[in-house]
Amino acid sequence: MQDHVTPRRVVILGGGFAGLFAARALRRSPVAVTVVDRRAHHLFQPLLYQCASGILSEGQIAQPLRGVLRRHHNVRCVLAEATDVDAGARLVHARRPGGGIVQLPYDDLIVAVGMRQSYFGHDEFAAHAPGMKTLDDALDIRRRIYRAFEMAETAANDRERQQWLTFALVGGGPTGVELAGQIREIAGHTLDREFQQIDSANARVLLFEGSDAVLGAFGPRLAHRAVRTLRHLGVELHLGTMVTDIDAHGLTVQDHDGRTTRFGARTVLWTAGVEAPPIAGALARATGAKQDRAGRILVEPDLTVPGHPEIRVTGDVMSLNRLPGLAEVAMQSGAYAGRSVRHVVEGRTKAPKPFKYVDLGSAAYIARGRAVVKAGPLHLSGLSGWLAWLFIHLAFLTGFRSRLGAVLSWSVAFATSSRRERAFILSDTDAPAGREPAPKAPPPPP
Amino acid sequence: MQDHVTPRRVVILGGGFAGLFAARALRRSPVAVTVVDRRAHHLFQPLLYQCASGILSEGQIAQPLRGVLRRHHNVRCVLAEATDVDAGARLVHARRPGGGIVQLPYDDLIVAVGMRQSYFGHDEFAAHAPGMKTLDDALDIRRRIYRAFEMAETAANDRERQQWLTFALVGGGPTGVELAGQIREIAGHTLDREFQQIDSANARVLLFEGSDAVLGAFGPRLAHRAVRTLRHLGVELHLGTMVTDIDAHGLTVQDHDGRTTRFGARTVLWTAGVEAPPIAGALARATGAKQDRAGRILVEPDLTVPGHPEIRVTGDVMSLNRLPGLAEVAMQSGAYAGRSVRHVVEGRTKAPKPFKYVDLGSAAYIARGRAVVKAGPLHLSGLSGWLAWLFIHLAFLTGFRSRLGAVLSWSVAFATSSRRERAFILSDTDAPAGREPAPKAPPPPP
Repeated sequence: MQDHVTPRRVVILGGGFAGLFAARALRRSPVAVTVVDRRAHHLFQPLLYQCASGILSEGQIAQPLRGVLRRHHNVRCVLAEATDVDAGARLVHARRPGGGIVQLPYDDLIVAVGMRQSYFGHDEFAAHAPGMKTLDDALDIRRRIYRAFEMAETAANDRERQQWLTFALVGGGPTGVELAGQIREIAGHTLDREFQQIDSANARVLLFEGSDAVLGAFGPRLAHRAVRTLRHLGVELHLGTMVTDIDAHGLTVQDHDGRTTRFGARTVLWTAGVEAPPIAGALARATGAKQDRAGRILVEPDLTVPGHPEIRVTGDVMSLNRLPGLAEVAMQSGAYAGRSVRHVVEGRTKAPKPFKYVDLGSAAYIARGRAVVKAGPLHLSGLSGWLAWLFIHLAFLTGFRSRLGAVLSWSVAFATSSRRERAFILSDTDAPAGREPAPKAPPPPP
Repeated sequence: MQDHVTPRRVVILGGGFAGLFAARALRRSPVAVTVVDRRAHHLFQPLLYQCASGILSEGQIAQPLRGVLRRHHNVRCVLAEATDVDAGARLVHARRPGGGIVQLPYDDLIVAVGMRQSYFGHDEFAAHAPGMKTLDDALDIRRRIYRAFEMAETAANDRERQQWLTFALVGGGPTGVELAGQIREIAGHTLDREFQQIDSANARVLLFEGSDAVLGAFGPRLAHRAVRTLRHLGVELHLGTMVTDIDAHGLTVQDHDGRTTRFGARTVLWTAGVEAPPIAGALARATGAKQDRAGRILVEPDLTVPGHPEIRVTGDVMSLNRLPGLAEVAMQSGAYAGRSVRHVVEGRTKAPKPFKYVDLGSAAYIARGRAVVKAGPLHLSGLSGWLAWLFIHLAFLTGFRSRLGAVLSWSVAFATSSRRERAFILSDTDAPAGREPAPKAPPPPP
């Protein structure tokens, strides 16, 4: 082991799965680790939709980064947003919430900043159709879902009532599918018999997907099962459709043949795409690294940036062999990057083996007792899929207390259909009365 | 029992303790009850500070009103804010979140709208010193408390660091005392060993109170005990002081002798006063009822408004015999009003007995294992007070699931000093860097 007077400085950008697993791999190394994140919490993103739907509380899926890393004595956390990298001087510039700039010198840099929601150039959609990447997003969606039923209950007329009772999801990946299932469950079970003017069970849930399958990444067999389960739950699937417009009262979609249709819906949720945050572009400019279309950084097989063996990119923002943006990939690549730094610190000269992703499977929860799980040769759906889903998520939920709390919340939610976390805040400027715009071109849907 | 073709219409304004207990008292009466609230949830206000401090989640202290009243088949809930009363036409005007107006005719009106935070004419303080009356307030305070330590950790200089590590509470009632104890606990225990640049245990907590005692309503003996406990916890008490100015960096206070002192503090929380919401003034204008200085409606001994036997005022917004604004008073007066309506419906002609408040005691939780409780001749403090506090709050927590969840959260929080609900959201416009204003007059504190 090398003898350092000042320990080697490792800066990790991002406290998600990749950043956390990198820090963990360095736990026993004589290095000084700095984890930089613009949030003070580590988010268990795979369960974010359960926070949005009121099953889990914020604290159950978001744990303070400092708490998670409390026993890592070589780690310090900095609450700031990385804005630039000076690859020559080996310096990260980061902005504190207060506006000040922090400069963080590094010997090794591990980039694990993740991806953010993309509206494919239609940023104006964001105001009407929130994404689902942050805790803020989840609470916004929770508020929109439960508010919609309240607004429907006191709606001035049938047309408005119908719009409040229609929920549109854009994107047929796991998040879109999971949210669609959750909203149908809330409408049919959670809110059962709570309203007098409306029957919440009549709420329409529309799922729009550009390709011809939902959960395409799970393979045709499970994708087919997912379609059947969603239809059984009452979700209306619109495959092969592109959203061309969204406003406060609905959205317009176009099918493969160019036909447009307008759907009235006061709640539109967007899970259709992701893009790299600005720091990825800054890193590319600083190092000459290439980015893919969504802005991911192309890396070498050892996850380093070409020409910069001291910079490693991990997790969702890493582009390597078209690996998907899954928690599993983030954990494994983060741990790999941490181990690589450890090997350098320990003075090993042999080049590390290339990063190899071991696919432990993917899972999507559709509704109570129904999930699809793909694990190697194993394809599970229905109840067996759901049990596998339960096991996988319990195994990975960070921290014992979260795990216990989640089991309890799930037990109650699954046994009684009720959801504890339904409180939402209505601001005075909420749900403006604004008139519905004149339909742009297409006639209303049948 | 009278025979109604259309049932008697009872409109209850407010879904707090008073409104809920009124609705419960009418549960088996042949009446049509409408509960109007501008929030969709019933808030367990006595535990709001535990939500603010990260022990309990929103769902544990806020339950959907519809859920709570689900089995009350003669009740419907309307999410709207009452704006006016037409006492002649017996009509309530309420504004929906969307902006539309709902008109609600009544045969009996029960007003239970509660009180809101008052800044005694200094509404400009609100931006720097949030109150603690709503769920929104509690989440804002949670964010401010935990953010302050993060900001201190990366502060640019000692002066800024010290300001972030200083918390000022204005108001020495139960809420102020409870929050002061919570912040000292967070600083000394919850955040222990999580920071590198600061020692969170050094955080200063200042409590400002205009009178010469904290918890004055508990009587001199317990007030004295509370002072001792707070001092033991490291809370700096400033009794007999009035706050004259608050800005983003601190506050200025004046003592009995007119001397002013400035304290640097980036977190100021306001629990000093309450005032009636605008609907109380509208009711007074509509009925000729008198209001006290804070806007409470003066009522007859049977809680009716003079000259309007069909309008009853209950809870915090009721002014009768200087009864304090406590959950207990709200529950008992709400239940009394509900029963009075029931008696009218049942055709009883005898005038009801005047409302009599039975003081079951008051309790304030100061810190782990320390509370003061006053129950009739019983005065408890320390551990015995805390056990009594625990019992009282469990007995009244609405709904079995909340109770179970709270017990678990408390067990974990009390056993380990940790708090689960610490996630907070930092918006981009958060904690503006804005320069500190030049001191207005007084020299900095010693």
